[in-house]
Amino acid sequence: MKIGVFGTGVVGQVIAEKLDSLGHDVMLGTRDVQQSLAREGKDNYGRPALKEWMAAHPKVKLGTFAEAAAHAQLLVNATSGFGAMEALKLAGEANLNGKAMLDISNPLDFSKGFPPSLSVCNTDSLGEQLQRAFPQLKVVKGLNTLTSFLMVAPRMLPGEHHIFLCGNDAGAKQEVRTLLSSFGWADNEMIDLGDITNARGTEQLLPIWVRLYGTFQNPMFNFRIVRAEQ
Amino acid sequence: MKIGVFGTGVVGQVIAEKLDSLGHDVMLGTRDVQQSLAREGKDNYGRPALKEWMAAHPKVKLGTFAEAAAHAQLLVNATSGFGAMEALKLAGEANLNGKAMLDISNPLDFSKGFPPSLSVCNTDSLGEQLQRAFPQLKVVKGLNTLTSFLMVAPRMLPGEHHIFLCGNDAGAKQEVRTLLSSFGWADNEMIDLGDITNARGTEQLLPIWVRLYGTFQNPMFNFRIVRAEQ
Repeated sequence: MKIGVFGTGVVGQVIAEKLDSLGHDVMLGTRDVQQSLAREGKDNYGRPALKEWMAAHPKVKLGTFAEAAAHAQLLVNATSGFGAMEALKLAGEANLNGKAMLDISNPLDFSKGFPPSLSVCNTDSLGEQLQRAFPQLKVVKGLNTLTSFLMVAPRMLPGEHHIFLCGNDAGAKQEVRTLLSSFGWADNEMIDLGDITNARGTEQLLPIWVRLYGTFQNPMFNFRIVRAEQ
Repeated sequence: MKIGVFGTGVVGQVIAEKLDSLGHDVMLGTRDVQQSLAREGKDNYGRPALKEWMAAHPKVKLGTFAEAAAHAQLLVNATSGFGAMEALKLAGEANLNGKAMLDISNPLDFSKGFPPSLSVCNTDSLGEQLQRAFPQLKVVKGLNTLTSFLMVAPRMLPGEHHIFLCGNDAGAKQEVRTLLSSFGWADNEMIDLGDITNARGTEQLLPIWVRLYGTFQNPMFNFRIVRAEQ
């Protein structure tokens, strides 16, 4: 499948690597291709510069947000929360309309250091903002509640654990479920919360996520919802 | 131990029942004792009126917030989020100072229906507000992330699951841990996040909690943090 991934940071790279390994035709989207390729040095996660990463993944394409969106049958938004709206504007409504987009972005505000607060929360969410701005894009909020390394390799953790999906379009949610199944997520590990307003709940998981990360000094954890025996 | 429980709703009753069954000397605190006893009929959980509940638990005392606070060596705040600050003001600083208080309250705003939003969040929390207002009270935020029936009976769920504690006073957190151990919580199920600012994280768990409650139509669930094998 032709998939466009917005964002060339660690989340975009990890998702694109997985999609590439599964045989998809992937294009990463960025604001300025030349500027992104000109970056030198390792990022905070010790990952190589984008130029080196591209060389190591020769089948993955790199383009502008608009080129990646035009390329895609299915979209993944892996930008930062602050970059998400601008990325979609640059992608262009005509390239987005009618497509499903898995939105992984979180509205984290690091301007006052760690732990970050949220730049939108409680009575609104970034997922809803994106959906309102692009009403014919089918936003599915998901995967925003765990580290990217686990998004694409859930079996690195023992036993059952959960991710949360929400969005207004049932067909788009099914497209995303099918994709995530191919990443290793069992059907009962993907909890459908309902419409996109539920992004308020999943984005507001981040404040405890970042504190648990601080406590454990390790991002390799996830939430499991333990229920009474049915 | 002499324990004061603020709030006569379902959470206060369930906590008080458990404390009573463990042999503690419990006083429930309320704004107006006569008004609380005059209430008729069952609550939303099908529980009996307070008057009947008191008759069924003859060792539990009922008093004003001030009387319950004066009675107590250890405090539990089980009021609603909107009622918490007023309850502590009525309890009186002199009756609170130097004591540990397990704060279960959540700043839920039901004024626009279900699911509720939060009346304080993100860059502040109710736990912090209470701690700031009563600097010599030792606030320990905890138990606010699951239904009261599970707070006092964690083994009703299968396997390990977690609660989160935070507060500025190490001794007060230890008092609370000891109490919660007697409810059935294993030591490694009580995750200490650090100081009281971490209440932002745990209170902001409520938005997804209420949505999961809506999805499952059943409050008998809790969060388990699944970590990679150490």
